[in-house]
Amino acid sequence: MRPSGRQLDEMRTISIDTAVSKHAEGSCLIRVGNTHVFCTATVDSRVPPFIKGTGQGWVTAEYAMLPRATDIRTRRESTAGKPSGRTVEIQRLIGRSLRASLDRNILGERQIIIDCDVLQADGGTRCAAISGGWVALRLAITHLLDRALLQHDPLGAPVAAVSCGIYAGQPVLDLDYAEDAEAGVDANLVMSKNGDLVEVQMSAEGATYSRDEMNHLVTLAEKGIEVLTTAQDAAVHP
Amino acid sequence: MRPSGRQLDEMRTISIDTAVSKHAEGSCLIRVGNTHVFCTATVDSRVPPFIKGTGQGWVTAEYAMLPRATDIRTRRESTAGKPSGRTVEIQRLIGRSLRASLDRNILGERQIIIDCDVLQADGGTRCAAISGGWVALRLAITHLLDRALLQHDPLGAPVAAVSCGIYAGQPVLDLDYAEDAEAGVDANLVMSKNGDLVEVQMSAEGATYSRDEMNHLVTLAEKGIEVLTTAQDAAVHP
Amino acid sequence: MRPSGRQLDEMRTISIDTAVSKHAEGSCLIRVGNTHVFCTATVDSRVPPFIKGTGQGWVTAEYAMLPRATDIRTRRESTAGKPSGRTVEIQRLIGRSLRASLDRNILGERQIIIDCDVLQADGGTRCAAISGGWVALRLAITHLLDRALLQHDPLGAPVAAVSCGIYAGQPVLDLDYAEDAEAGVDANLVMSKNGDLVEVQMSAEGATYSRDEMNHLVTLAEKGIEVLTTAQDAAVHP
Amino acid sequence: MRPSGRQLDEMRTISIDTAVSKHAEGSCLIRVGNTHVFCTATVDSRVPPFIKGTGQGWVTAEYAMLPRATDIRTRRESTAGKPSGRTVEIQRLIGRSLRASLDRNILGERQIIIDCDVLQADGGTRCAAISGGWVALRLAITHLLDRALLQHDPLGAPVAAVSCGIYAGQPVLDLDYAEDAEAGVDANLVMSKNGDLVEVQMSAEGATYSRDEMNHLVTLAEKGIEVLTTAQDAAVHP
Amino acid sequence: MRPSGRQLDEMRTISIDTAVSKHAEGSCLIRVGNTHVFCTATVDSRVPPFIKGTGQGWVTAEYAMLPRATDIRTRRESTAGKPSGRTVEIQRLIGRSLRASLDRNILGERQIIIDCDVLQADGGTRCAAISGGWVALRLAITHLLDRALLQHDPLGAPVAAVSCGIYAGQPVLDLDYAEDAEAGVDANLVMSKNGDLVEVQMSAEGATYSRDEMNHLVTLAEKGIEVLTTAQDAAVHP
Amino acid sequence: MRPSGRQLDEMRTISIDTAVSKHAEGSCLIRVGNTHVFCTATVDSRVPPFIKGTGQGWVTAEYAMLPRATDIRTRRESTAGKPSGRTVEIQRLIGRSLRASLDRNILGERQIIIDCDVLQADGGTRCAAISGGWVALRLAITHLLDRALLQHDPLGAPVAAVSCGIYAGQPVLDLDYAEDAEAGVDANLVMSKNGDLVEVQMSAEGATYSRDEMNHLVTLAEKGIEVLTTAQDAAVHP
Repeated sequence: MRPSGRQLDEMRTISIDTAVSKHAEGSCLIRVGNTHVFCTATVDSRVPPFIKGTGQGWVTAEYAMLPRATDIRTRRESTAGKPSGRTVEIQRLIGRSLRASLDRNILGERQIIIDCDVLQADGGTRCAAISGGWVALRLAITHLLDRALLQHDPLGAPVAAVSCGIYAGQPVLDLDYAEDAEAGVDANLVMSKNGDLVEVQMSAEGATYSRDEMNHLVTLAEKGIEVLTTAQDAAVHP
Repeated sequence: MRPSGRQLDEMRTISIDTAVSKHAEGSCLIRVGNTHVFCTATVDSRVPPFIKGTGQGWVTAEYAMLPRATDIRTRRESTAGKPSGRTVEIQRLIGRSLRASLDRNILGERQIIIDCDVLQADGGTRCAAISGGWVALRLAITHLLDRALLQHDPLGAPVAAVSCGIYAGQPVLDLDYAEDAEAGVDANLVMSKNGDLVEVQMSAEGATYSRDEMNHLVTLAEKGIEVLTTAQDAAVHP
Repeated sequence: MRPSGRQLDEMRTISIDTAVSKHAEGSCLIRVGNTHVFCTATVDSRVPPFIKGTGQGWVTAEYAMLPRATDIRTRRESTAGKPSGRTVEIQRLIGRSLRASLDRNILGERQIIIDCDVLQADGGTRCAAISGGWVALRLAITHLLDRALLQHDPLGAPVAAVSCGIYAGQPVLDLDYAEDAEAGVDANLVMSKNGDLVEVQMSAEGATYSRDEMNHLVTLAEKGIEVLTTAQDAAVHP
Repeated sequence: MRPSGRQLDEMRTISIDTAVSKHAEGSCLIRVGNTHVFCTATVDSRVPPFIKGTGQGWVTAEYAMLPRATDIRTRRESTAGKPSGRTVEIQRLIGRSLRASLDRNILGERQIIIDCDVLQADGGTRCAAISGGWVALRLAITHLLDRALLQHDPLGAPVAAVSCGIYAGQPVLDLDYAEDAEAGVDANLVMSKNGDLVEVQMSAEGATYSRDEMNHLVTLAEKGIEVLTTAQDAAVHP
Repeated sequence: MRPSGRQLDEMRTISIDTAVSKHAEGSCLIRVGNTHVFCTATVDSRVPPFIKGTGQGWVTAEYAMLPRATDIRTRRESTAGKPSGRTVEIQRLIGRSLRASLDRNILGERQIIIDCDVLQADGGTRCAAISGGWVALRLAITHLLDRALLQHDPLGAPVAAVSCGIYAGQPVLDLDYAEDAEAGVDANLVMSKNGDLVEVQMSAEGATYSRDEMNHLVTLAEKGIEVLTTAQDAAVHP
Repeated sequence: MRPSGRQLDEMRTISIDTAVSKHAEGSCLIRVGNTHVFCTATVDSRVPPFIKGTGQGWVTAEYAMLPRATDIRTRRESTAGKPSGRTVEIQRLIGRSLRASLDRNILGERQIIIDCDVLQADGGTRCAAISGGWVALRLAITHLLDRALLQHDPLGAPVAAVSCGIYAGQPVLDLDYAEDAEAGVDANLVMSKNGDLVEVQMSAEGATYSRDEMNHLVTLAEKGIEVLTTAQDAAVHP
């Protein structure tokens, strides 16, 4: 019944290759089906003004798509003169999600910038960016620990994200583009490996949904997060 | 226990004055406690490119704060050169929320622009903008119906929005600024008068929350929405 | 003969409500007929670079219209990416006018920012912004004096502004939008309560005017300024 | 008593060289003392949207300074990303002034763009731009008449502009930079050769002026306009 | 003597993987040593204004670096608000180079956009972008020929680019970053497989070079182009 | 055979007037045929961040055309919001060329900004800007030496630039606009008076050229540089 032939609660194939950049402190290429996101983590001693002098660290994220990551080529945002509203919204979500499992006092006054560049898109790019971004962040922090630039590990359980939605009247897990374009309700959930919620975003476009449907979607997402955090663990502890 | 002395599930005082603009097709000034938002609805025969020729209508929203709506003056976005990421995110949320109760085929190929300008802010401005924006939209559509520019009413049950969150360890309804600045979990829920969900956004900053807490917050929000939609009904059927 | 039925030298009804913002050090909502401007004054210890270290203060102004302040909705300047030429010209005029009655040495090295946001426009918005802006400035300075943050009053006689012009061949006072759109000569005059001139701007569009007509318009303006400064006095000394 | 040793009512030396551009339909280099402005007029068949289909013409102006036209180098506005408020204000003034002596119906649906680029500045650049811009406009219209692209002359008497102000307590004509920087009242007047007023802008900065002083300044300006329009006539009728 | 231990006239290892994008009409990932560029070709029926109605085609290019393609993270150009001067210069070079081997009449009125995104940089990114861009262009044109959307092949011999320069006093081929940062003379040459020159850019920074040195560098480049065009041929005729 | 009737290796008439600005430390108006460029040099004690504290100086350049320098009026770059790619490319070339003959240690930690504004264009504007820019730079440095602000002369032999290309199948020197628009190969060469090369840029558009043709063009350029550097010498040693 799904365009891809998947079960209602079935994730796409996931792969996470690490150390794909010779320059970055942490990096991975995450593939969730045909969605491919190149993630790097940069450790920067300069911090944003609002944490200067607080002794606390910060994690921020930037997100972009290559112009031909999509079926129809998209105009470059540098040409448009600014990141689109969608881009800014996604960047804020990725940053907030990664900060959930971080002890900013232990990190100390430094910033880690996570760059998530979508090489190929097929739905769920922001979720793949969060899941891959966490791996890059984990590797950058390990890099600091290995060089004794950090004494204690500021990072908790893996954090991952998955989409779900109501497609053709049925709650389904991990929407690909064909499903996403048709779904009446579209959700992105961010959770940690131990089952805690970090972010729920559940939107209807020109429609509404019941509280029961909401609960069904959260249950589906929990299943997907388990698969994703298992893949994250494997990638960072090879 | 709350800074304002309110009960955990108690809304602030709500007032909605209509017809506050001599030019706009629909308008209101909504006050939710000390949060004051000036909302106008403009009917425009020009439509965005993506609906041209479809025969369907569109509702979009713009949101801004006066520079001194806040305790510390904020720089004008026209000076900054573009709307901030926060502004764009809120604008998209308001538009999506108002389209939930709209039959775009009945509206026909026209656009209604909802402008929400915050005169004074004390937490929950985006929720007040949605609740007030719906009133301005309702009045603009009644204006079209009264002049026989529309034959049938494209708008369903009132749609309102309310914030809730976990403040000092307790789930509370309708956060004011003092609470919002301290809350570890912050949620905005959009619902229609008949209890359907339109949007759930529940974010933790540097923290997580359990599924039980999520459910508690949704239940609180349902209570607030009832109060708000009652005030909306009174404002549009005086 | 005038669209509104007013006498040639008759002002519109004026009202000035003060303390309309809980955050600003000074604020008012001025109404000149159907032109409504929301004015706030913000005291800021940061000063512009060119007065740093001089011991002198500064007053600057920002001006904007809500998009639907006008009959036809205007695009937001934050979306356009910058304030228009008209906006910048008005902002400079407001600032210059308010500085005329100010002793910058007595004010001391601080800045007061006057925000003038037009909620509803019907001609003469820049003049209403100056007249209302002076009230907000006066209240902010009184706020500083009351708290002993200032020892002496740096502000002199009230400053107000009024438009006049040649409409249908006749010099008239205080143009509303219907007149303004048709006037061949359009003037804005800023004066203090004791009759001194601060600024004269008298423009013809596709026409010229004689020196006699110039003098007639200045005499009309003097009459309007008297009405306005009386209303300002009443507002600040209730 | 004046830094330059001039009489109170004495203009600086004026020269106007025409045909300084091989491409433009009309051009001149105007020198008013050490203020040098390069003016070109471009006839364009494309018109701005608001006159499309009206059969009427339009004259618009652009103004800029070379970065080192001033004693201290100024940042290029293309680098700053937009024309400054001062630039926009001047451009609007030049355009309005030149349209005063123009019959837009006779000109027909075409646009003439006047570019005024200041090669060297020593006070009064906007006035020199208006006076020189009128010469370029006159020559471009003669060019159209000569080629029978226009049947009738749409342009009336010469229009020129001059500054005056109160310097060291005395009303003086045609301020140079040394005077302009010190003047408490600063005026720019635009008039036609037959004595009609087009624009009066008289500003005090941190001061005020009396009605008598206003009249004195207008009388001085009339004298300067006579000198300027004589030079314009000589330049266009060699 | 070279940091990498290469001979003076030795290229780095080259690999070209094709079909790396499921969406683009042509694509490759070119690796020249540690410089990795992701190239896609998009066929677009919309053409730029200056060729509309001419029946001729166009090839244009866009170039960007991922922020952490470099050792020090670079700010995203969408955040900066516009492509840098360096980026624009490179984009123009890539487009001009690829058009050299193209018969624009045979291509017909369509545009092909080459996107070159640098995933990892180690010197010579613009050259790798040209060499990889040609492969993507070749594959996109083959795609059109295969689907009979083109009857004849508009593309001639392969075009490739290579850098060379004077490093530590010696002319060397294919500079990596360590060499590029130190080289007193830096050249980029674009040539076709049959030995014709398309572009020579040879710059000294704070130095000069003799005509003999110029000739030596061109001879080195000819050698590199042979290696590169052989790799291009192999990639497109597997 | 050439539109201008010149010999294949004949330069246009060159004139260089110095001291054309009363404010700038060095200035000239260079005319190469109908191409006229106004060049000023500004000495600035502020330096760009990357040389702060190095004790070394810097020379940078800015380039612009007046809107009607060309036959068809060009939009002002301040209105467009940023310098075009072509402008940036030219600015970088001018700066690099002028730094070639400069000893940055002797100049000491100061910046010299060369502004090149094209008053009238007829091909070869970037070359005229380099040749004229060098004269302005030379005069500004002499100004510093004369005032003992510099002890030693940091500037070597004159640097000039000339264009050449293949027009109607023939290599020609110093292209004017009529030739430039038709040339299949277009080159700009920067050289010093003693025959050293600073920059070679040789581009084909939709074509290629042989190594022999390249050599022929370099030989032509050497001839032009001799004429130009003789004129530079005469201008600075009158």
